[in-house]
Amino acid sequence: MHELQNLIKRIHPADSAAIQRATLRQAQLTKPAGALGDLEALSVRLAGVFGTEFPAPQGGAVLVAAGDHGVAQEGVSAYPPEVTPAMVMNFLADTPAGPGGAAVNALARTVGARVYVMDAGVNAALPDHPRLHQCAVRRGTRNLRVEAAMTPDEAQALILAGAALARQAIEDGADLIVPGEMGIGNTTPAAVVTARLLGLDPAEVTGRGTGVDDARLAHKVAVVREALHRSPATGPLQVLAEFGGYEIAAMLGMMLETAAQRRVIVLDGFVEGSAALLGVTLAPALREFLFPAGHCAERGHAAQLAHLGLKPMFDLGLRLGEGSGGVLALPLLRAAAATLREMRTFEEAGVPV
Amino acid sequence: MHELQNLIKRIHPADSAAIQRATLRQAQLTKPAGALGDLEALSVRLAGVFGTEFPAPQGGAVLVAAGDHGVAQEGVSAYPPEVTPAMVMNFLADTPAGPGGAAVNALARTVGARVYVMDAGVNAALPDHPRLHQCAVRRGTRNLRVEAAMTPDEAQALILAGAALARQAIEDGADLIVPGEMGIGNTTPAAVVTARLLGLDPAEVTGRGTGVDDARLAHKVAVVREALHRSPATGPLQVLAEFGGYEIAAMLGMMLETAAQRRVIVLDGFVEGSAALLGVTLAPALREFLFPAGHCAERGHAAQLAHLGLKPMFDLGLRLGEGSGGVLALPLLRAAAATLREMRTFEEAGVPV
Repeated sequence: MHELQNLIKRIHPADSAAIQRATLRQAQLTKPAGALGDLEALSVRLAGVFGTEFPAPQGGAVLVAAGDHGVAQEGVSAYPPEVTPAMVMNFLADTPAGPGGAAVNALARTVGARVYVMDAGVNAALPDHPRLHQCAVRRGTRNLRVEAAMTPDEAQALILAGAALARQAIEDGADLIVPGEMGIGNTTPAAVVTARLLGLDPAEVTGRGTGVDDARLAHKVAVVREALHRSPATGPLQVLAEFGGYEIAAMLGMMLETAAQRRVIVLDGFVEGSAALLGVTLAPALREFLFPAGHCAERGHAAQLAHLGLKPMFDLGLRLGEGSGGVLALPLLRAAAATLREMRTFEEAGVPV
Repeated sequence: MHELQNLIKRIHPADSAAIQRATLRQAQLTKPAGALGDLEALSVRLAGVFGTEFPAPQGGAVLVAAGDHGVAQEGVSAYPPEVTPAMVMNFLADTPAGPGGAAVNALARTVGARVYVMDAGVNAALPDHPRLHQCAVRRGTRNLRVEAAMTPDEAQALILAGAALARQAIEDGADLIVPGEMGIGNTTPAAVVTARLLGLDPAEVTGRGTGVDDARLAHKVAVVREALHRSPATGPLQVLAEFGGYEIAAMLGMMLETAAQRRVIVLDGFVEGSAALLGVTLAPALREFLFPAGHCAERGHAAQLAHLGLKPMFDLGLRLGEGSGGVLALPLLRAAAATLREMRTFEEAGVPV
């Protein structure tokens, strides 16, 4: 626990002086006040993250953690668990367009972001691969409906593995970090974690995931409810171990390390959101480093964002995960930062006002 | 009129066979059906534009037309008309970051789009500049409240000038064209054009522009109403000449040429929307080449989009113009196209479904 506590202690609030300078500068740029809409607030938040009114985020990285879930045996997903390892191989495949044939690979290439792939606990023997970070401590979690999904030690191991991968991506030049995930069944642990941390009823936070029908959704809500009845855990690390998933633990670690290093956490969908809720519970200042990408079609995502008090940048109806939505936010963040760096003020431009 | 009629005749519907092939392919890609949300429909529309289920739009160009407006003397804007030429010089300025110190310049650099600047009719003698396309036929329109803003010949000259600039941008390698504008007072002609073409009351389509207060907004609505009472014109070219602006005419020309050459028109805000309404009235197939970028905070924009039956990609509360919002859509369009080109199908990836 010592290493984890040290990680949490390294997270400090954003730079309020830089935020003030950026706010002043944004008001002097050559455009009507407020005409750049949400880009203005985003640019100011970026100033706070990077400690300068001229933020210059460039490198993007998507860190995709994959894991399987014991609860998948309850029939909570529209897809069989075998899809998880198959999709990991898809993330790693060599294709004519470059590494990886999944959505996150294709999207990441369009914005110059690098994709990192982690086996956080897939229920299969994955082959060694130069682009696969093998961090699994177990082949899938236990069934959270009937027992704790992970031991506290397993949870911590994955948090630290996620932190290590974020550290590597930052060393490789990334300052916009997108935690992403793949794991058949993982909207169920995300729903349990969200329900417990926000004190909401399972029906309010349990959605269709990759596309279950009404009957299976009702069953999924019942599974979430049973899990919550099984354990009274409320502390974030206990909640994670009881109800979470290995990739959720890994994403939590990525977020903690990214905030500690004062870089941007681009927040994708609902499963990512459950990791973010754990993160702000452990370290409230982490919120200042979170930038939600888009509205996610999964029920419960809006409740997560409302709790975080953060507004996403677009609403494209995405519900894929993988960090795919987060990738789409990178150009918007770069654009927001560019307004502070590259626009002239009315005075500089000699524009009469 | 002959040249303009020929331009309109060159506009044909999108490629329905490519749309069909793209729809089939999109359904086989490695993700749950529909999980990429609006990106899926966007990718299919792009296939229709480019006539292939593997669309590869790359080059982006923002074509900013600037013009002044006789109606500005009615006090319909929060800014003085002198801002128009000053902002044109800002678009052209050499800055440490590159050419141009305005929002559109800064944003365009972040997405690798080139900015073209046109004097479509600014009320000032602008100096020669290698990056300024001098297309003005008059220094600002006449006051549309009391007389026709332009002669039909002037309107046509600017339409053809806009078409010529789009042709140049396409020759330079652009296949994503963002028409943009600058012109103090130009939300007033845009409101008159929109009210007349959609048969709406002035109050429904007249907004605050760069930020007028309640009293000035009421006055602006009255000016729009007087203009509509002054002339019964309903044909698109008559509506343009009576109520439009030189930069609106130029953007109309850009849109016609872009559609004729089967490239993407990225539709920015309210003033751009008024040009698009004129465009689909002249050539209904132009609609298939229109891709609205974001919701614009200006009242009347939503009515334009509802009429076009098109959904924008984001809602960042932008209301700047310049094509700035359109620029932000370029990465999303590139991403949508990449899903068709670079994602593998379930069969190709060997993912069990």
